[in-house]
Amino acid sequence: MLLCDVGNFSAKFLEDGKFFSLNFDELKNYQPTQNAYYISVNSKFKPQNSKFIDISGFFEFKTKYIGLGIDRIAGCYGIDNGIVVDAGSAITVDIMEDEIHKGGYILPGIGAYLKAFRDISPALNFSFNFDIHLDSLPKNTQNAMSYGVITSIILNIKNLSKNKKIYFTGGNGEIFSRYFENSIFDKNLIFKGMKKALIQKGVL
Amino acid sequence: MLLCDVGNFSAKFLEDGKFFSLNFDELKNYQPTQNAYYISVNSKFKPQNSKFIDISGFFEFKTKYIGLGIDRIAGCYGIDNGIVVDAGSAITVDIMEDEIHKGGYILPGIGAYLKAFRDISPALNFSFNFDIHLDSLPKNTQNAMSYGVITSIILNIKNLSKNKKIYFTGGNGEIFSRYFENSIFDKNLIFKGMKKALIQKGVL
Repeated sequence: MLLCDVGNFSAKFLEDGKFFSLNFDELKNYQPTQNAYYISVNSKFKPQNSKFIDISGFFEFKTKYIGLGIDRIAGCYGIDNGIVVDAGSAITVDIMEDEIHKGGYILPGIGAYLKAFRDISPALNFSFNFDIHLDSLPKNTQNAMSYGVITSIILNIKNLSKNKKIYFTGGNGEIFSRYFENSIFDKNLIFKGMKKALIQKGVL
Repeated sequence: MLLCDVGNFSAKFLEDGKFFSLNFDELKNYQPTQNAYYISVNSKFKPQNSKFIDISGFFEFKTKYIGLGIDRIAGCYGIDNGIVVDAGSAITVDIMEDEIHKGGYILPGIGAYLKAFRDISPALNFSFNFDIHLDSLPKNTQNAMSYGVITSIILNIKNLSKNKKIYFTGGNGEIFSRYFENSIFDKNLIFKGMKKALIQKGVL
């Protein structure tokens, strides 16, 4: 089984239990040897190879949200109740109750925050510092940026989650999951949702 | 009296009680007719006109923060106790206790958030919607972005401010101040700090 999740800046694959990632140039030249069941949020991705099979129509997902990204649908698809946080190029937060999607919100991902700071001023050109104490106030610019971003993201999720379980995925999912007791990090959350949809449709 | 606050993208002036703003091209050609007492966070601003007088050294400000922007110092300079929020190209949040600066943090400004979203994906290219209800979850992308940004900013400030008074300034200061009961919006907060420093130094 080959699953593919095409994001804004790269594509993630799960092939027979093995995970790998390709950038866009690599993706163009990639020739799968078996059917590649994929979802994509990237309008630039237009596969020529007939082994690529778009499964975005396979999800029976209940939501009143208009225009919900297929990656967010897939991430929520295996979750009956809880909060789903995908911390990648963007950070998306979605709420599931009794298998129904109740809404969600979006923040920039860590890399996008850093670029936003750089674009404001060269004085804000720093790498991110996850290794700060949130119980003391920042005393320099790098920590002030990192503190602002971390606290705004986690306070927001805490405000929404209350005692609900929080499922983290995405490149920065693991590090954010550490700030929450009632959390799980699952690198393959989106692939699990895709797999569920494929099983429901009788493909697997 | 002519005061000038040079920011990352424009310069604000207060001349004999009247407020005006110049972009960078306009600033280069601007010839003040009286002494222009200025602060600047913009390293590109190198005034040739001798009427421009840098007053960044005039502030006697107690802080352990290394590299605090002179605009943040000026904004805090008239405040004994409270939170100072400057919501401009960046959003800075600073805490004053008994005339001592205890630290602070930085977030992107609203325009920088929107650019960050656009840079992630053309699917996230929306204007900002301040007119959303924060007690119901977003059901479309524009509201999901706006909700994420507004809630992350205000929850962060609320977490820090507790019952302290919050002084808002900057282009989006007024709209954010509406989310807080214990808040004041003062467009001229930075100029007031500058004026205080000038009075202390015997210039005014």
